[in-house]
Amino acid sequence: MQYGALEAGGTKMICAIGDENGNILERYSIPTLMPEETIPSIIEFFSGKDIAALGIASFGPLCLDKSKPKYGYITTTPKPGWMNCDLAGTLGRALNVPVGFDTDVNGSLLGEVTYGSSKGLSDVVYITIGTGIGGGVLSNGKLLHGMLHPELGHMLLRTHPDDSFAGRCPFHHNCFEGMASGPAIKDRWGAEGKELSNREDVWKLEAYYIGQAIANIILTLSPQRIILGGGVMHQLQLMDMIRNEVKMQLCGYLKTDELADLSAYIVTASLNDDQGIMGCIKLALMAAEENDQIIGVKTCI
Amino acid sequence: MQYGALEAGGTKMICAIGDENGNILERYSIPTLMPEETIPSIIEFFSGKDIAALGIASFGPLCLDKSKPKYGYITTTPKPGWMNCDLAGTLGRALNVPVGFDTDVNGSLLGEVTYGSSKGLSDVVYITIGTGIGGGVLSNGKLLHGMLHPELGHMLLRTHPDDSFAGRCPFHHNCFEGMASGPAIKDRWGAEGKELSNREDVWKLEAYYIGQAIANIILTLSPQRIILGGGVMHQLQLMDMIRNEVKMQLCGYLKTDELADLSAYIVTASLNDDQGIMGCIKLALMAAEENDQIIGVKTCI
Repeated sequence: MQYGALEAGGTKMICAIGDENGNILERYSIPTLMPEETIPSIIEFFSGKDIAALGIASFGPLCLDKSKPKYGYITTTPKPGWMNCDLAGTLGRALNVPVGFDTDVNGSLLGEVTYGSSKGLSDVVYITIGTGIGGGVLSNGKLLHGMLHPELGHMLLRTHPDDSFAGRCPFHHNCFEGMASGPAIKDRWGAEGKELSNREDVWKLEAYYIGQAIANIILTLSPQRIILGGGVMHQLQLMDMIRNEVKMQLCGYLKTDELADLSAYIVTASLNDDQGIMGCIKLALMAAEENDQIIGVKTCI
Repeated sequence: MQYGALEAGGTKMICAIGDENGNILERYSIPTLMPEETIPSIIEFFSGKDIAALGIASFGPLCLDKSKPKYGYITTTPKPGWMNCDLAGTLGRALNVPVGFDTDVNGSLLGEVTYGSSKGLSDVVYITIGTGIGGGVLSNGKLLHGMLHPELGHMLLRTHPDDSFAGRCPFHHNCFEGMASGPAIKDRWGAEGKELSNREDVWKLEAYYIGQAIANIILTLSPQRIILGGGVMHQLQLMDMIRNEVKMQLCGYLKTDELADLSAYIVTASLNDDQGIMGCIKLALMAAEENDQIIGVKTCI
């Protein structure tokens, strides 16, 4: 059996065909333009490939509640053309297959817990730190949606007393994303992160925010492991600085086996940047198993 | 069938007998002294009552991981005599019944989602604000444990710019509990909360901390509802102040049906302070169904 996988990003759409073991048999990438141009290209790629189901992990915000009419939609995104786009429905009806649908970060998390080094754990958080900051959550063995889905990137954090940067989140100014995303680093220091690799002050401050967010994630979600991905995390010197910061922020309050070894508790992604598309394969497998047919007739193209 | 319920608090132990509908048939309260005195009194109460199982919701921290040797223990509590007390094991073996065991706040939450106004929801957070601050989490329909269990009371929050109080948490100083618990109110203002009912400045500041914590809880756990309990929440004028603060802190970023009506989203407990003991009845019912026998032979008395 073959399965379709779509990692829908704001910049590009990665389409792939995979098997039930997460092997990627074929891969195709197209730029994310307007839905009228991009969605037909996606349909064309998957047509005639005889896929048993399609798994989609998408940029958001999304409606993930199957009981709601907007299930399968990208909802309030500021990205031109994509607001209220019925992405899952349009593709599911065009290809006539069951569809699995979740956030991009839940997709990456699902890849890691299905095929990567966090296989077998029931409570895991995946955080991506790049152009934006987002988080996927596995709780009690299932991807967490709840009312909507977690929006970890907008957590309210304490500003470091020596940091005069006001933050760049259009909603909250100095939230996690506003202070620690790639663009926030560029705005604060006047250069891209990759040009600042040797600047210890840059990464110490970055670790302060990431560590603080992780401390609060531990206190709220109590995960068994935290996985960090995204462009900013290519600065691998950050990892130990973040672990130190988490330890300092928690002040020894929590005593668990996991926290006694932070190098195994706070880790980088393990699937060579394929965690997202492999998670989409798993979403497709789950949709096939549950026969998740998209209902309704509206399309967004 | 009759079920045993034990709400184990730092001040008192509430023992009760209930039926499968959550009705409390008999109730008995004893002070929490040393385990050597208190646990035999608990055993005495339940002995001969022909209970099918016992549900315990306890002050913590607790070990809730059934795969660990310390499952059923109160672990690192500073309360004299109770550190490393095998509460669930000792009672389960003495009474020879299946035992359900969880945190006090998860117990109250379970009462609300089983017998109270949040019946049927899958993702709910219960926060108690009193002598301490704690939170229980229902995620994907199950009580959340993960690595340990949530410790929402120690979330790191921004200190209000006009607040010079340094906080009283022995670990984190100015975390949620350090700034907003009942004792924090007393330390900051020099009087108990109940003597300050008419002081708007007191409750505005209190709502600032509670509202900020709730905003972060929404961004991380994405609950469908948040229930507030505990002594501080007897100041009912706080409720609307908290809702306003949550709205201000989220800055319109999240758009959901639930958040459009905060008076139905952030609510007080609905079971007349019986949510905890009723949750224990449900823990007992679940333990009976799964036949959760306590294994091992050690006791703590």
